[in-house]
Amino acid sequence: MRLEDLPIRDDLRGRTPYGAPQIDVPVRLNTNENPYGPSASLVADLAEAVRLQAAELNRYPDRDALALRGELAAYLGHDLTVERVWAANGSNEVLQQILQAFGGHGRVAMGFEPSYSMHPIITTGVSTEWISGAREDDFGIDPDKAIAAIEEHRPDVVFLTSPNNPTGTALDPAVIAGIVEAAPGMVVVDEAYFEFARTGTPSALTLLPDNPRLIVTRTMSKAFAMAGTRLGYLAAHPAVIEALLLVRLPYHLSTLTQTAARVALAHAAELLGAVDALRAERDATVEWLRGRGLTVADSDANFVLFGLFEDRHAVWRGMLERGVLIREVGPPEWLRVSIGTPEEMAAFRAALEEIL
Amino acid sequence: MRLEDLPIRDDLRGRTPYGAPQIDVPVRLNTNENPYGPSASLVADLAEAVRLQAAELNRYPDRDALALRGELAAYLGHDLTVERVWAANGSNEVLQQILQAFGGHGRVAMGFEPSYSMHPIITTGVSTEWISGAREDDFGIDPDKAIAAIEEHRPDVVFLTSPNNPTGTALDPAVIAGIVEAAPGMVVVDEAYFEFARTGTPSALTLLPDNPRLIVTRTMSKAFAMAGTRLGYLAAHPAVIEALLLVRLPYHLSTLTQTAARVALAHAAELLGAVDALRAERDATVEWLRGRGLTVADSDANFVLFGLFEDRHAVWRGMLERGVLIREVGPPEWLRVSIGTPEEMAAFRAALEEIL
Repeated sequence: MRLEDLPIRDDLRGRTPYGAPQIDVPVRLNTNENPYGPSASLVADLAEAVRLQAAELNRYPDRDALALRGELAAYLGHDLTVERVWAANGSNEVLQQILQAFGGHGRVAMGFEPSYSMHPIITTGVSTEWISGAREDDFGIDPDKAIAAIEEHRPDVVFLTSPNNPTGTALDPAVIAGIVEAAPGMVVVDEAYFEFARTGTPSALTLLPDNPRLIVTRTMSKAFAMAGTRLGYLAAHPAVIEALLLVRLPYHLSTLTQTAARVALAHAAELLGAVDALRAERDATVEWLRGRGLTVADSDANFVLFGLFEDRHAVWRGMLERGVLIREVGPPEWLRVSIGTPEEMAAFRAALEEIL
Repeated sequence: MRLEDLPIRDDLRGRTPYGAPQIDVPVRLNTNENPYGPSASLVADLAEAVRLQAAELNRYPDRDALALRGELAAYLGHDLTVERVWAANGSNEVLQQILQAFGGHGRVAMGFEPSYSMHPIITTGVSTEWISGAREDDFGIDPDKAIAAIEEHRPDVVFLTSPNNPTGTALDPAVIAGIVEAAPGMVVVDEAYFEFARTGTPSALTLLPDNPRLIVTRTMSKAFAMAGTRLGYLAAHPAVIEALLLVRLPYHLSTLTQTAARVALAHAAELLGAVDALRAERDATVEWLRGRGLTVADSDANFVLFGLFEDRHAVWRGMLERGVLIREVGPPEWLRVSIGTPEEMAAFRAALEEIL
């Protein structure tokens, strides 16, 4: 018995599982993790919170995660409240729930690529058709072309990633507002990397009050340095949250996840301090790469897309041989490096110097 | 803007969210939780394990949860190994992944009801048609009738719950084997309550070696007293696990969940000791209810279905007024009580005495 002998869905046949390589190397700059682990104080608070909660682990968690959602709303600001915020196991699950509620067989979702590769994967995973729109040469979105594409395909769900992964490009809220107006269905702005945006970049949260079909998603994996906790969340109109309640699996968010996320939120100031350091390191990395004569996309995220390499795989492998794991992703000829500590970025620069 | 104004999937319209009431009362016997919280030693080990893991929470978890799956395989026995075991956030997510891989639009799943209410909910949540087969008056499954129903409907996925929820009924493996032979697709045996079965009840795991289309699901929510941790798992042929890798969300299982489950497995002997106490309390509850002249279904689970009440809602409400929350579920005229501590069951008996 092999996989192909099993009665799997026809549209899954021939596919391979998603996966960035999980390779154990000295310098991991491939999955946009935050290089700064939790502080000793956060670790101590988390262990103590788990100790206190553990005696009740025989009980199901709060099914609607109300305390956590209230605290996420307070963190986001913009007058958001608990009934406008939703949380799940990573933004992947948040996105899947959105597609279960608003997509499905016979429906269409659309994104502007290159962008986050999980958008089409999650879309097709719930049997929704994926339409790939295009970004411009500078990785921005041309509003007129985007609106024309939306009018042509009439997507039920539009994905906009800002700052975009893997390019780092932030969108002007005016572009988002125009797309929301033109779109016949829901518009999801994936702001996983928002906290890393350069000063003055507005969030799509500013557009929420006027746009009940707009959903803004976030994650605690990046700025909050909690990739291991798997906590994604979103802000939207309360009716959108009601729709998600129809498709979420009951008790989807464990007591431990809710607890860890709340402890991290209590340490927000400390965690966002490290974000400032990463933004400075990112800007320095962009400058250094440009100084080496490379082409570099402007970045509002905790990673940088750079090139152009005729044989990017050779460069990627050369870096790996020198103990630096970066990511072979995005358009051909480009590579992506996540921003690490100053020591990790020095190792990155040294390895790249050798190769160039 | 109200929910009905949003462009949700047509088949979700008019639905209400799943939800057992989460009511704060002295005696909660409504969601089949294990009444025995983790021991002081398990709590200490868990807090320490989290403290050790927390420093790495900025990194993504092991995407394939290999250590945990290996330990679950060792717990299950039957010569199972890591490549035959899969885990997710509660058996709800395990079941949803099965349906994403083997169900979907245009496909059919079938169960024999009354049974676990989430089976049809998760089935329709991923746009799969649900066919409801029938159980007999004693809540067992007649193999000839079941096979006839399967031959009529040709389901892509068959659900068998053993011990069954909410009735407590365990299935003879010969019945399961006959159904697997007749079924054209996958057969899922949901053994969430298996550890509570009366001595000598065989697990469907015994059928796995000969049946690559058989999947046996389990949970740590019940016998392992870890409802708050949300850890469901399954055993199946390695090709089935490969199929699930195509639909699972990357990094679906957090570091904390993997850690907590592994700590609980290390305490298996202690946790399964409490299971013995609950089985004895369950048998005593069945006997007591029958002694009061009530009709009681044989139970191999940590709950008991009893009746018959012309107005079961009045009985349920009367119990709640006396501080005892049970579940209004299953066929009309029946009620379900989860098995609690001796003190909780004394409160249950006292309240029911007053009402009868």
